[in-house]
Amino acid sequence: MLQPDQTILQSLELIRSGQTSADELTSACLAVIEAKNPTLNVFACMSSPEQRTGYHQGPQPQGELSGIPIVIKDLIDIAGLPTTAGSPNFFGQQPALKDALVVDKLKYAGATLLGKTNTHEIALGITGTNPHTGPVRNPHNPERISGGSSSGSAAAVASGMALGALGTDTGGSVRIPAALCGVVGFKPTFGRVSTRGVLPLSWNLDHVGPIAKTVADAALLYSVLAGYDPQDPNAVLVPPAPFQRQKDISDFRVALVVGDYISEADPEILAVLSRAAGIFASLGAEIVEVEIPRLEEAARANGTMVIADAAAFHRERLDEHPDWFGADVRERLEKGRAVTSTEYILARRVQSEMKRYFGLFFDPFDVLLLPTTASVAAPIDGLDSAAYASRLTRFTAPFNLTGLPALTVPCGASPDGLPIGVQLVGPAWSEQIVLQAGQALETATQ
Amino acid sequence: MLQPDQTILQSLELIRSGQTSADELTSACLAVIEAKNPTLNVFACMSSPEQRTGYHQGPQPQGELSGIPIVIKDLIDIAGLPTTAGSPNFFGQQPALKDALVVDKLKYAGATLLGKTNTHEIALGITGTNPHTGPVRNPHNPERISGGSSSGSAAAVASGMALGALGTDTGGSVRIPAALCGVVGFKPTFGRVSTRGVLPLSWNLDHVGPIAKTVADAALLYSVLAGYDPQDPNAVLVPPAPFQRQKDISDFRVALVVGDYISEADPEILAVLSRAAGIFASLGAEIVEVEIPRLEEAARANGTMVIADAAAFHRERLDEHPDWFGADVRERLEKGRAVTSTEYILARRVQSEMKRYFGLFFDPFDVLLLPTTASVAAPIDGLDSAAYASRLTRFTAPFNLTGLPALTVPCGASPDGLPIGVQLVGPAWSEQIVLQAGQALETATQ
Repeated sequence: MLQPDQTILQSLELIRSGQTSADELTSACLAVIEAKNPTLNVFACMSSPEQRTGYHQGPQPQGELSGIPIVIKDLIDIAGLPTTAGSPNFFGQQPALKDALVVDKLKYAGATLLGKTNTHEIALGITGTNPHTGPVRNPHNPERISGGSSSGSAAAVASGMALGALGTDTGGSVRIPAALCGVVGFKPTFGRVSTRGVLPLSWNLDHVGPIAKTVADAALLYSVLAGYDPQDPNAVLVPPAPFQRQKDISDFRVALVVGDYISEADPEILAVLSRAAGIFASLGAEIVEVEIPRLEEAARANGTMVIADAAAFHRERLDEHPDWFGADVRERLEKGRAVTSTEYILARRVQSEMKRYFGLFFDPFDVLLLPTTASVAAPIDGLDSAAYASRLTRFTAPFNLTGLPALTVPCGASPDGLPIGVQLVGPAWSEQIVLQAGQALETATQ
Repeated sequence: MLQPDQTILQSLELIRSGQTSADELTSACLAVIEAKNPTLNVFACMSSPEQRTGYHQGPQPQGELSGIPIVIKDLIDIAGLPTTAGSPNFFGQQPALKDALVVDKLKYAGATLLGKTNTHEIALGITGTNPHTGPVRNPHNPERISGGSSSGSAAAVASGMALGALGTDTGGSVRIPAALCGVVGFKPTFGRVSTRGVLPLSWNLDHVGPIAKTVADAALLYSVLAGYDPQDPNAVLVPPAPFQRQKDISDFRVALVVGDYISEADPEILAVLSRAAGIFASLGAEIVEVEIPRLEEAARANGTMVIADAAAFHRERLDEHPDWFGADVRERLEKGRAVTSTEYILARRVQSEMKRYFGLFFDPFDVLLLPTTASVAAPIDGLDSAAYASRLTRFTAPFNLTGLPALTVPCGASPDGLPIGVQLVGPAWSEQIVLQAGQALETATQ
């Protein structure tokens, strides 16, 4: 039994009450995959029945996600399956020996891991069009891109192939495909979720995050993923916060970003942003319009760091077999290799300054509200990737640079039915506040 | 009244008991300066009597450092005085408008700021030989270097011109001149002391730290300097540690670094290191010999980051007036400009990995014991700076890269009377433990 919009929380309740089972959910998802994957091109590979099963399944569910079908971006190791990172000339010649820590956590929580999802090659791009594996198509319109780089993960959840997914986000790669496919995507604070066992794109900007149908589902996945990993050089041991009573949403102060930075977005995006602000106002929250300086500069600095970091990580492959990369990724890596240390250091300086800026900015605000992308999903055919890419990342990349928690929530659609998300951002380590605001928006939107 | 070896703590007691006064201490220091500065070349400029005085002087001392004469490295702003950074072609054309935060803190503590001390040009070098200002000479032998880059600060304290000093340390620039001049130098954890108002050498590796005659004096200066600065992008808000009873030194476990990395040091240095280990053992501490991998690589990575960061900060001056820099600094800046982003990113990766390594390393140890430098102070004439430099930084630079607190304590001398220091290093934020170990060593040495 699986309704098209059935959530993780609903499914857990159905399992608990005996109305469905882990096997039934898996079979239902596999049926959807069989029907839709030939069109949407979501999967890099499927798990075998043995690889699929979490540690706590069985007649008495014991984990937080017992029996819940989840899919994993093919940048994240699952023991026994290849990790190709969408770049099968280089990667995935051997199956991974160990699970990534986040996969291990999902297995301990009892999740069913159905398989690994297609990604923009080495995650260095946000359209989801991959010369090796073909484009991942948007479930709302297969002629459109899914967005990327966590393309298959977002498309799987949006099409009902899985109830949740893991993606990675270095410039927006969880939030962008989630927004374009009409689902929820969440990038926690940098350092909150382990990246051990995840193929790096940037050692400085990579985040692992969940994709799900609802904010509550994303919050549940997040709670399983989060936690300090002493083996991960980027993990941060967060000082325990003093216990605070949760604020009511009517006491929230929401900073609505305005000005030139935002007005670059398409009118249909701005209409949805206004709608979201109106919803918060109707819930009693105070909306304060703010202009934030240097966000375009922050997005550019993030772009510089991503390509330079990627070129550093892939340096041997780029030197020895440049032709094994697709043209768009090769060109970006070559640009990254040409970044000088001075350019890189100045980008890092923007990072330090913007982190400091946001460290003070949130004193009078609970969350920041802005669009997720400046445009809806573009047609796959004839796409000018470079020009379009900056429209997808301009609102997401500043929060990779600053490492702040950022959530995209579906909040409307274009006249031709393509989903539009809005983005909520909070101060470092404030995931619960961001999720609370997102859930309030989601509930009021429906 | 000022004895040659009179400390800050003794002087405070003499003021408190009315046996001396702030004015008397200042006059005594000025007399030493008049006598010795023509030889040693310590000062870049002197304060006027009005600029000199802290905020809490007067008949009833009120600050922790009331009436104590201190000197400041000429990389750190004092309002009304030029900051030349040892590079007077570029810097110091106008007096600084504001005090650096650390200077402000010293003034609030009542210190008397006598003037600003010579430095290796832009702090990018560790000999203290500067083509614009001439060499700072070692108080123990004026034919020898003082070490650098906080050259004048260390020489001032060692020669009795001041009771304490501020330096900056990016690859060893507090600890090296302190060791070569026979005084105590302390580099706190990265992010513990504000660098606001300090001319950058590297945004990622700069530390401000005290130089003094004794560990107790350095600890007092440190307590005045330390504290979170929300205006400093590198400042870290440290979670409060649970209250812990201080361990007795006889319960310490001291990791003594051995192996090829250490055996590069001159025999007279190794003899002093053995002596220090023997002292800790005689105090009841357990000495455990450890080989630590990758410390040479860490020192090299620090060097790569320093020159690249410096070239980024000085890029416009380097492009427009390269000849205004001295030959050694210009050459280093040009090497820094040629560092590729890939080289830089790989150096940063070493940084991340070594930080993580030391995050776990200290679980069974309280402190790490190793030499401060591999050689004593070299003759000024005919010095092959490049070859010698790596002998001075090989043991200090890894702790800039990792940001760990590191203290040099005088522990002996070469047969010809040149001072030798040993270095104590602790885990991040463990300044009190490092200082405690240093004080135990110092007391037992005397």
